[in-house]
This record gives sequence, structure tokens and C-alpha cells, in this order.
Amino acid sequence: MGTIFEFDTDTALRSAGDGRYTGTLTDRWDVGDIPNGGYALAVATRALASELAHPDPLTVTGHYLRPAVHGPVVVDVETVRAGRTLTTGAACLMQDGRERLRVLATFGDLDAVRGPTHLGGVPPELPPPERCVDARGARSGAFPIPRVHRRVDMRFHPGTPGWAHGTPSGTPELTAWLRLADGRPVDVLALPLLVDCFPPPIFELGVIGWIPTIELTVHVRARPAPDWLRCAVRTRFVQDGLLDEEIEIWDAADRLVALGRQLAMVPPGIGDDGPAADDGPATR
Amino acid sequence: MGTIFEFDTDTALRSAGDGRYTGTLTDRWDVGDIPNGGYALAVATRALASELAHPDPLTVTGHYLRPAVHGPVVVDVETVRAGRTLTTGAACLMQDGRERLRVLATFGDLDAVRGPTHLGGVPPELPPPERCVDARGARSGAFPIPRVHRRVDMRFHPGTPGWAHGTPSGTPELTAWLRLADGRPVDVLALPLLVDCFPPPIFELGVIGWIPTIELTVHVRARPAPDWLRCAVRTRFVQDGLLDEEIEIWDAADRLVALGRQLAMVPPGIGDDGPAADDGPATR
Repeated sequence: MGTIFEFDTDTALRSAGDGRYTGTLTDRWDVGDIPNGGYALAVATRALASELAHPDPLTVTGHYLRPAVHGPVVVDVETVRAGRTLTTGAACLMQDGRERLRVLATFGDLDAVRGPTHLGGVPPELPPPERCVDARGARSGAFPIPRVHRRVDMRFHPGTPGWAHGTPSGTPELTAWLRLADGRPVDVLALPLLVDCFPPPIFELGVIGWIPTIELTVHVRARPAPDWLRCAVRTRFVQDGLLDEEIEIWDAADRLVALGRQLAMVPPGIGDDGPAADDGPATR
Repeated sequence: MGTIFEFDTDTALRSAGDGRYTGTLTDRWDVGDIPNGGYALAVATRALASELAHPDPLTVTGHYLRPAVHGPVVVDVETVRAGRTLTTGAACLMQDGRERLRVLATFGDLDAVRGPTHLGGVPPELPPPERCVDARGARSGAFPIPRVHRRVDMRFHPGTPGWAHGTPSGTPELTAWLRLADGRPVDVLALPLLVDCFPPPIFELGVIGWIPTIELTVHVRARPAPDWLRCAVRTRFVQDGLLDEEIEIWDAADRLVALGRQLAMVPPGIGDDGPAADDGPATR
């Protein structure tokens, strides 16, 4: 092959021994001026994958301590427990001597899992990608396109998102096709990035602005087939400004490849006065 | 007041300084012969609450490394980041020198949260508790009642659970009233216990046996009103033996007080042959 993909270049790490990995967070995965939280999580997950004996991040939780910045990054990995079928590890992602992200994860081998299957849901129904709405064109002129949306190829269901046209739908949900823009196949290490690359569904309630993630957990449930993914993102419960955000990612073989949930918080001053579609930049 | 409640006695911890707490895991919260995973999580959460500056565990993730045992327990708490509105901490729960549970949590102050509310769901509909099915009587003679079900007062929707009558419903869901049996009001520290005290919904698929939790995350979304809680538990996706288990807990004021999700795994030999309601003890 020989192709060098953006995701691999921008999450590359060098081992410094004793579980320490070093790399660089680039400015190619920004939302606003800040590296996307999923990008930081993917870098930490790659460090864990390098250190731990099992290949697949079955469950990864990140707690966001401070925004990441562009530049050098150090990830320290602790092997918490190495077992026969599962390995648990913790990672601290640091920049400029300050911890930005703490991660706890359990890895396993998705080739080795066996057992019953019973799916209480199906992939979202979407017209073909070429008839859907390219995320890079879905924003009004007032909203800058996040740089991370040039790295992913995201195609919203026709007619959505409502907020991009100044008419939030009132239902905090969206569905979309998704792949990496440069053709890199999505693997288990890219999924922690993809679960956090969507505009927040709460935008459809007219609550538009930076919605910081407190914690994000992703379950990687299968290795994705190399083709378009289908995603369903929704917020179920907004209560006093605290909210969940859920995502399902399905592959072309109709397998659930990732299930994610995050806890986020509406900052003071956003959404206090009901619908406010023009209340700020469409960034998070 | 002066009443000494079981939950408080059995999660009591003494500070040994430097973030270390010591206590004892009793045999009163067992499932089978093993302390319930939620009980261990509640002990770790209490240690975090003792050490961190903020009162409410907004999001708590536990990775289960080894089963807990009865007897002395040591919890070491690390303050990861203490901020103005949020504090993040990690906890290691150890017994006999071996780590059993690793926890990562972010605390805040639920009295201080402000912002929009939009609930995309409602509490489960249940007849009054006295017309529902007491969990202590819902099992056939072959299934021992877990000891933890004497500590909680759990009342299933009439006619459920199907598996207890040898007729799994085929739908991995259940709804129930819930409170602590000795009348202790449920507070934010008891919620990490309660999110893990239900029989696995997958029993309704005839997949019955010990379903070990790999990871459990709970978002505490409000402080519960002092009355019966209503719970909805379901498994959405079982795929090759990996499964999620979700729980919503609502209080008497119709507020969502906890949202939980865990990743669990069907061990080899259980559920391989389809419905198998008599395939083992109703424990997890």
C-alpha cells in the first residue's frame, strides 16, 4: 500500500519506555481552535493499544480535565491488570506538564468473542450518501466549518440538520453516513475519534454553542467492515443543563461497531432563553 | 434520627491518610457468594466522596478486574484534577493485596447546576408497589434469592419477570419500583449500588447464568427525592456474547436521577443453545 493517512500520521506515537509515549497533536482535527476531544481520546487509546497485550479497546472512558492544545503530547500508560482474555489500562494524556485527559480502558480480542446475538435495534435508514447532505456544506455562512469536518466525510440525512438552516427541529437527534475523508479504513482505533466528531444533537433544540464533554465512554463491539458507516446520534435527557449524548455506529455488514455515551454540560449563558439558533458559532 | 442503616454500616470507611481509606465488605450484599459489583462500586465512590471537594458523583466508571471477597478492603484515592466546578478522581479498590476494581469519577455539585431541561423520555409506568411482584418471591424454588435482594425492596411489573416462571419473555427489559429495604433514603452515594442490583435483562432471552460486568458507568443526574424510585432496565444489543445493559432510575418527582450503562459478557457455555431457562442459578 504505502499510503500515509492523516489519522495515522496525526496519532503516531514513539515509545519512550516504561509505558510512556510521545507524539504531537496537530491542528487538523480542531473544533474552533481546540483539538477535538475524540482526537485526544484516539491518541490515548493508541498509546494503550501499544502497551497492552490485547488488540481491541472493548470499553474506553475518558474524563476531560482541560482542553487539549496543539503541539507535543505525552501519554503515560499504566497496566492495571493483564489477564488472559482482558487487559485493563489507564492513561494520562499530558501537554505542557498539565494533564488534559485521563482514560480508563479494558482491551480484549474481538476475534475471540463467542456467544449469542440479539439486536434490539437496526442501523438508521439513510438514502445513498450521494443524496445526503455533506456536512461541509450544511452550515450557514455565519458558522465556520470545524477543521475536523474536513478530515471526516459526514453525510446527514436529507433535510437535516435543522439548526444549520436556522430552524432547529426540536428533536435532538441526527443520522448520517460517516467515513474518513482520505479513504483510510475505519478500524477499532479510529472509533474513539468518530464517536465524538458530530455536532451536538442538542443544537436541534436551539441550544447552540460550545457544549463541553465531561466524560465519554465508548464500547467497541465489532471490527468495522471497510466501507461507509451509518451513525445515529441523540440526546435523550437534558436536565438543568446536564445532558447525555448517545451514538450508535453501524458498519456495512449491519453490525453494531460502537456504542457511545457522554455526559456534557451546557455552559452558563447558552440556552437559557429557549431557542437561540443564531446565538453563537456552531462549534463544540 | 439516630437510625443506623445497613448501607451506611457496610460502606463505612476510615481515613488512613494520604487518600487511603479502609473498611470491610460484608456478606449482606452478595449475589451467589460474591459481593455485588454495585456494592463494591458504592464503597469506592464513598472513598472518592470523602477525599474530593465536590459532593456529587456526576459520572462514575468502574472496571471490574477480579471478583470482590468478604473482608477487609483498602481504597486508595488519587485526586486527578480539582477544579472550581468539577473534581476528577481515581480509586483503586484492593483486597488481600490484589486490585479488584478501578474507578474513574468526576464529582460536582448538583445544587449548582443550571440550564435548560428537555426530557426525551418518561418514568416507566407501574401499578402501585403493593400490586407489583416482590423480587424476593419472583424466583422459582431452584433459584436462590441473592442476598442483595434482601437489602433492597424491588417490585417488578405484574406478570414479570418471565424467566422466573420458566417463560422468558423474549424481550430483554424489565421495570420495577426500588428502595432500600431498611428505609434508608436513597442518596447520590447509594445510586452506584442500585444501578447494578437488578437481575440481568438478558435472562428474558433465556440466557441465564452469571453475566460478569466488564465495565459500568453511571451518571448521577439529580439528588433523589426520599420515596420509591422507578427503574427501567434493558439490554439493547447482544452481539457475539458481548452486551450492554442500560438503566434509568427516576424519582417520585419525575426527575431522572441516574442513567447507567454497563458492558458485560456472556461466559462460554451459557446461551449457546438458545433458550435455556433452567440452565443455571439466577445469579450474576
